[in-house]
Parts: sequence; structure tokens; C-alpha cells
Amino acid sequence: MKPQTLQQLADHVSGKVIGDPNVFIESVSTLHTAGPGQITFLSNVKYINDVKDTGASAVIVAQKSEVEINQIIAKDPYFALQQIVVLMHGHRKNKPVGISDKSNIAETATLGEGCHVQDFVTISDNVKVGKNCYFYPGVFIGQDTTIGDDCILYPNAVVFENCVIGDRVIVQSNASIGEDGFGFSTHNGEHYKIPQIGRVILEDDVEIGVSAGIERGALDDTVIGKGTKIGDQVAIGHGTIIGPHCLLVPKVGISGSTEVGHHCVFGGQVGVAGHLKIGDMVRVGAQSGVAGNLESGKSYLGGPAIEASRAKRAMVMLPYLPEMKKRIKALEKKIEKLTADKSSE
Amino acid sequence: MKPQTLQQLADHVSGKVIGDPNVFIESVSTLHTAGPGQITFLSNVKYINDVKDTGASAVIVAQKSEVEINQIIAKDPYFALQQIVVLMHGHRKNKPVGISDKSNIAETATLGEGCHVQDFVTISDNVKVGKNCYFYPGVFIGQDTTIGDDCILYPNAVVFENCVIGDRVIVQSNASIGEDGFGFSTHNGEHYKIPQIGRVILEDDVEIGVSAGIERGALDDTVIGKGTKIGDQVAIGHGTIIGPHCLLVPKVGISGSTEVGHHCVFGGQVGVAGHLKIGDMVRVGAQSGVAGNLESGKSYLGGPAIEASRAKRAMVMLPYLPEMKKRIKALEKKIEKLTADKSSE
Amino acid sequence: MKPQTLQQLADHVSGKVIGDPNVFIESVSTLHTAGPGQITFLSNVKYINDVKDTGASAVIVAQKSEVEINQIIAKDPYFALQQIVVLMHGHRKNKPVGISDKSNIAETATLGEGCHVQDFVTISDNVKVGKNCYFYPGVFIGQDTTIGDDCILYPNAVVFENCVIGDRVIVQSNASIGEDGFGFSTHNGEHYKIPQIGRVILEDDVEIGVSAGIERGALDDTVIGKGTKIGDQVAIGHGTIIGPHCLLVPKVGISGSTEVGHHCVFGGQVGVAGHLKIGDMVRVGAQSGVAGNLESGKSYLGGPAIEASRAKRAMVMLPYLPEMKKRIKALEKKIEKLTADKSSE
Repeated sequence: MKPQTLQQLADHVSGKVIGDPNVFIESVSTLHTAGPGQITFLSNVKYINDVKDTGASAVIVAQKSEVEINQIIAKDPYFALQQIVVLMHGHRKNKPVGISDKSNIAETATLGEGCHVQDFVTISDNVKVGKNCYFYPGVFIGQDTTIGDDCILYPNAVVFENCVIGDRVIVQSNASIGEDGFGFSTHNGEHYKIPQIGRVILEDDVEIGVSAGIERGALDDTVIGKGTKIGDQVAIGHGTIIGPHCLLVPKVGISGSTEVGHHCVFGGQVGVAGHLKIGDMVRVGAQSGVAGNLESGKSYLGGPAIEASRAKRAMVMLPYLPEMKKRIKALEKKIEKLTADKSSE
Repeated sequence: MKPQTLQQLADHVSGKVIGDPNVFIESVSTLHTAGPGQITFLSNVKYINDVKDTGASAVIVAQKSEVEINQIIAKDPYFALQQIVVLMHGHRKNKPVGISDKSNIAETATLGEGCHVQDFVTISDNVKVGKNCYFYPGVFIGQDTTIGDDCILYPNAVVFENCVIGDRVIVQSNASIGEDGFGFSTHNGEHYKIPQIGRVILEDDVEIGVSAGIERGALDDTVIGKGTKIGDQVAIGHGTIIGPHCLLVPKVGISGSTEVGHHCVFGGQVGVAGHLKIGDMVRVGAQSGVAGNLESGKSYLGGPAIEASRAKRAMVMLPYLPEMKKRIKALEKKIEKLTADKSSE
Repeated sequence: MKPQTLQQLADHVSGKVIGDPNVFIESVSTLHTAGPGQITFLSNVKYINDVKDTGASAVIVAQKSEVEINQIIAKDPYFALQQIVVLMHGHRKNKPVGISDKSNIAETATLGEGCHVQDFVTISDNVKVGKNCYFYPGVFIGQDTTIGDDCILYPNAVVFENCVIGDRVIVQSNASIGEDGFGFSTHNGEHYKIPQIGRVILEDDVEIGVSAGIERGALDDTVIGKGTKIGDQVAIGHGTIIGPHCLLVPKVGISGSTEVGHHCVFGGQVGVAGHLKIGDMVRVGAQSGVAGNLESGKSYLGGPAIEASRAKRAMVMLPYLPEMKKRIKALEKKIEKLTADKSSE
């Protein structure tokens, strides 16, 4: 899009200009790489000294910086950045292709108006797709699955049969939605596959990362709540329910039949056992292993995960274990001597 | 399928009816969500109090419950459940499509009778496929690979060249079988790729999860033993041999040239180093890191993994580390005082 | 290829023959499985006793073995092995297929001479591909992406738009390059997607494993340095820069905006937080969690990762925690008694 003045950008984010409101901004960049004609942002006050070294023409800040630079003061600079990137760069433009005749769309499937289907896409029997959806090459949709409006399925994404996908859902490349849950009954030393008859429901505004796997329910459905964003290579077990507006960072794994509340944030590589109840607004630090229920509003860390502040105090102590053992030994010797001295008195 | 009487179901699983043998059962559900016409199950006695709250028409139990509800008594309720779900719901029905002319099957490839190949499937030179196999869209089979009878390859599953797949093997979507092992020779600071000339052998009844990766052997073969089930996003290194009837839960990673015995169970996110020997019937708890050989029949936990009971005792102690350090310091002070008092006597 | 004499192989790797220079070698195998006509290798002196049990006709060693067996003495036996496997077995032969008319190549895309494109491949607008590249079925290349010479993209690999791939790059099956970074601005409890306008740059000789995900940059580019090899199911965050000649073993996860130096080696399942600086030649042990900057040339281990030698000393102490606690308690009792005795004197 064409360049904007700093004032135009400030108006767009309900912010206030410090400096020259007429400077033209052409694009967005980071503090360290930005140059003339670019705007950057300071989301964390601890980098404030870096502002004076930036080559940017302007910076978005939460509070006025004393550095001599054009500024937009915005309450939430990171959200202002998001709005400005959308304004100036926009989301990915998916090429209008209509319905490719090299795709395979079942006669019983229905697509709303404005849908685009690239080559090598398979849409199976009785699939219902809303308006303005975009299917990249290699996408597979199993029979009886329903998809809402404005969804994007990236190359080689797979959605199995009988799933329900809301509006504005994004499924990244090579992700799998609705594969069989890992459900076997072991009898006389052999594992018998239990048909997985539950569904996967992805509510509105969900995003699923590349090579993620969302197992369909064994009996009950697996549900990903509205607005929840799931990173690359995340695995969600069968029958698990993730509440709305959660962030599951790449490589998280959650076992089956667990319930997670709303607005939870799980760090990278976190593992959660099955059949647990995780409250609302729970934060779990990277690589933690959750083995029990977690309370709403708290932060957890470690394996097994305990309250984060307590876990941190314990973790920093770990390297001192050998020293602690030595000190115990030294104490034992001294006590022995004191006791011996005493009895020989 | 049509509804069954409770007696019919009990007969099917060699179980015994308590209550009304003529009640009709239409489907299977979980304890908490089941309603009239549904049967549910109690696999763990600790949930026995939940039985009285279920809306189900009947419940499968190991021992007679005192709750007033129709019951099937079965030795192994979870196995009975499996049999009943198969009876009433069945495994996934793969639509009969014959051989799509939008697939690409090499002239030198052979397929047994009853195979179905969907669009956009590639079957390369000299591939031999048995009877009644089903290939979903986007599947790729490399040259000289052999596949047995009754296998299912889900969308975008990839099997590289010269692999051997037994009967009734299931490969879930976006999984890779027989990709190059992570084998490089580092010389003068550069990594030289070592051609990976081993194969992957998946024995009968193996299942491989979505986005899993089974590396082909560097020189020797990688082998997954009969009946072993491998979860989503599991990685198996080159030349590793997994015995029969193991369960590798999602996100397990096993490095190369390790040998795992039969009937082992590895929890989620377990990592195993290379060149190790893991015995038979070994259980490794979630997120453990296995750095040495493990003995048959034992349970292990932790990083590095040690015997599970010992690991658990140590893990629960971790949060008390700061307190322990304080107590050591207090002791040191008291000893110092006692010693000083003594020498001043 | 036809058999080679031991002398020919020795000459090929600038090695020296001990024993019969005229013995014919037909293929390469491991110490334990090799038979007549095969050559094997000893990369680690600790297995030297196994040499006498091998059935191989010859063995590659660093120093002359006293065992009565034909030998090639090579400075770096593992590198000699690599050279011999390439000589005798070669890298994978990709079948010459030309440009399939069942692929979809945009009119505005250009391919250098010697390229092969299999069925069901999509090459989008303005893509520029160098010479002798090979695209397996199901590959997707987004618009404006540039690919160098001699690259191989395996089945269902996905490269998003506007990425830059060097020469001799290998992307394994089902991997994703350039998907959106996990970038959201949370405002009033909802997560707003930030358009990810950076690129992914894979420099020359990079290899990316199956189902790996390399996020495109939010604003700056994500870069994988020359010669770096990335294992299966690795995740690299947006804007992260990995230096040249690193080895990232399967299942490593590195968050966004982190800088990693050259010749670093990260073990399986290692996690690295975002916005960190990792030096050159850093080694991080399997399953470690890196939460701070790391110094060049050092080895690290643990969660959080500390210097490896110190971490190992602490880790072996962990199982003794319950015992340590008991000993502290015993000391406290003794001290109490000593103090009581003293005051009653």
C-alpha cells in the first residue's frame, strides 16, 4: 500500500504523535534493522536504550522516550504494531484460482460462494464448506466434515471425516485434524485398535500449526475452543477439550481426556498427562511436565510442574547439590568428633 | 448396525448380565456423557462412584456394582468395550473407489486384488502391494517397496524406496517411513552426508501416527516389530530395532542403533539415546531421558531415567531443596558455636 | 558398482592397507552384521574387541589393530566410511522423469536445465529454480520463491512464498519451510494474528528433516546457515538465525529471534528460549532447556542448561535427595541433643 504519514498511522491505532507528524512511513521493521522510511516498536521497556541506535524514522512506544526520535505513543505498542503491519503489509494474499479442474470435489459436497480450490485437493462426500474458503494443493477433507466461512487450509493439510470447523480457521501445512486417537485395548499381550468414533471440533478463529496432530475423540469429541492458537508440531490427545483463547506454543503435547480452561498459555515442549483438569488463565513454563490438576490463574513450572516461583527457587539450587552433600558429610564428621570428645571427657 | 440387546452384547464379549438382558443398546459412550440407549464402561475402580450418576442404560464392569444399573460383568472391561465398539460402530469405512485414473501407478508396480487407490497417489517402479490395501490421496510409495495385505495409508503418508511393510499395517496421515537417517561425517568442519542404504521394515499389525518419522537404516535396517503401535510425531532413528507389541506414545524420540525389546511402553515425549539396549516389558514414564541400558520388566522415570520408584521419591523432594540448604546452614552455625564454646571452656 | 580391491578403496580414502590388498569388497556393513566381501569400520576404539568377531573381509580403523584381519588405516575412519559408501553405493538415484504434465507449473515460473518435476507438484508464480533440481510428488512452492541448483525436495515438502533456497539443499518429506511464525498480539483477551512478512533463507548445503517446520520471520528473516543439518521434527521460530555447519538433531525446538553461532550441536529434544544469543561451537545435551545466553566453545546440559560437567555432577546426585534429607534430620537431632546436654551440664 502507499506510504502513510506518521499522523495517519497514529490515528489508525488511536495513538499520539511525538515529533514530525508528516514523516512518511513505508514499511515496518525491527529496532535493529529498521532504516529511513520505516517504523519500529518497543514492546519491552528494558530495550529502551536501543531506541537511540535505531535507524528507523519512527518508533511505537508505550511512554514518551527522551530519545530524539519520532514517536507514536500507544497504550499497547504490540497491538498497535499488529494493526500497522496489517494496514501496511496485509495478511497473505491467496491467489484467486476459482475451482481447479485438477481437484477432486465429490458431487455431494457443497462449497459456498467465493471459495478457491487449487489443484490436487480432495473434498469428499457430503462435505459442506462455507463462503470464501481457500484450499491449497494437497489438502484432503474427509466425508461429512463441515467447514465454516473464511477458512484457509494450507498445502497438504488433512482433515478427516465428520469433523466440524468454524469460521476463520487456519490450518497450516502438513497438519492433521481428526486422525485416530492412540486408543488400544491390550489383551493377552496384543493391542487391539478401538475405533475412534468421536469428532474434532475446531471453533471459530482457531489456528493450527504445521505438522500438528489433533486426534479425534475415542467416544466423546476433541474440542479446540474459539480463538485458541496452536503452534507447530503440537499434539492433542483424543477427547481433550481446550478452552477458548489459549496459546499452545510449538511442540506442546497434551494427552487424552484432559480439560483445559480459557486463556491458558503453555510454553514450548510442555507435556500434560491425560484425564486432568487445568483451570483458566493457567501459565505453564516451557518443557514442564504436568502430572496433576492445576488451579486457575497460577503459573507452573518443572517436571512434575509445581508453582512457578517455588519451582524456580528449587531449580537454581540444583547445581549446588554436590556441594550440599559435601557440607552434610563435613557436618557429620564434626558432630562425630564433638560427640566422641564429649564421651571421652 | 441395528441395536443389540444387553444379552447379545454380553454374549459377544463372553460376559454376564446383571439386570435387564433385554434392554436395547444403540451405541457406546463415556460414563459422563452417556444417555438412554447407550452403554458405557468402568475400566478403573476408582471411578466407581461415578457409575450412579451416569445416564447410560448399561455399564461394563469387572465386578458387580451395587449401584442399581444394568451391567455386563466382563473380566477385562476395556477389552469388552473394544469388542462392543467394533461390533456396533465398526472401524472406519474407506469408500470403494477402485484405482483412480488420477493416480500415478508405475507399469512395473503390482497391486493385489481388492486394492483401492485414490487420486494423486504415486506408486513407483517395482512396488509390490498385496490384497485389499487402501491408499488415500497424496500417498507416495518409493520404488521396490513391498506392502502386504489389508494395509491402509492415510493422506499424504510417504514411504520411501526399498522398504518392507507387512500385513494390516496402518500409516497415518503425513507420516514418513524410510526417510534418510540423520547420518553425517564431520570432516574439517563440514558435514558430509552418508548415503543411508538400510531399509525400514514394518512388521504385521504395526500402526504409525501422524507426522511420525521412521528413518531408514544407515547400513542395517530399522525394524518396527509385529503389533507395535507408534503414536503421533514419534521419531525413530536409523538402525533402531523396536520389538513386537510395544506402545510408543506420541512425541517419543529414539535415537539410532538402539534395540528395544518386546511389550515395552514409553510415555509421551520420552527420549532415548542411541546404541542402547532396552529389555523386554520395560516401562518408561513420560518425558524421561534414557541414557543407559534398561533391564527387562522394570519401570523407569526421570532425566536421566532411573528406577521409577526411586525417581519419584527424589522428584517429590526437589521443591524442598531451598529449605534443605537453609537447614544445612543452620546446622553449620550451631556446630561452629558448639565447637567454639567447647574450645573456650 | 563393481567390486573394488581393498587397495583401490584405500587409495580412494588416502589410507594404508594392512593385510591383503587384493581382496575384493562388494559392499559396506556394520561390525556385527558384515560378512565376506564386505568392509566395515571402527569409529570408536571402545569397540575394538568386537573387531575379532566380525565376519567382514576388511575393517577401516584409525590405528592398526592386532586382530588378524584386513585393514584400511585412515586418519578419520568415519569420513573414510562416508567416502566408501558414496563410492560403492552412491546417493539415492532419483528417476529421470522430466517435467510431468500432471504437475502444475506457473507460466511465470522458470526452471533451469536438468530439472525433474514429478506428478502433483505445484510451482507458483514467479518461482525461479536453478539447474538439476528434483521435485517429488506433492511438493508445493509458493510464489516468488527462489531455489538454487541441485536441490531435492521430497514428497509433500512445502515451501511458502518469497523464500530463498541455496544450492544443494535437501528438504525431506512433509517438511514445511516458511509457514507463518507463531506471532499474535493479545488485546482484550483475544489473539490477533500479526502478518509474518519476513522470509526464510536456507543457505547452501542445508538439509531439513521430515515434518520439520521453519517459521518465516515476523519482520526480519529466519536464516539457516550454510551446511547446517536439521533433523526430523525440528521447529525453528520466526526470525531465528542459525549459523553455518550446525547439527540440530531430531525434535529440537528453538524459539523466535534467537541467534545461534557456527558449528553448534544440539541433542535430541533440546529446547531453546527466544531472544537469546548462543555462541559458536556450543554443544547442548539432549533434552536440555536453554533459558539464557551460552558461551562459545562450551558444553551445556540440563533444565535450565548449565555447564555440562557441573550439570552431570548435580544430576547423579538427584537420586540421593531423600537420603540427604534424612541425614540432615539426623544431624539436627544430634545437635539438639548435644546442645541440651551442654546446657544441662
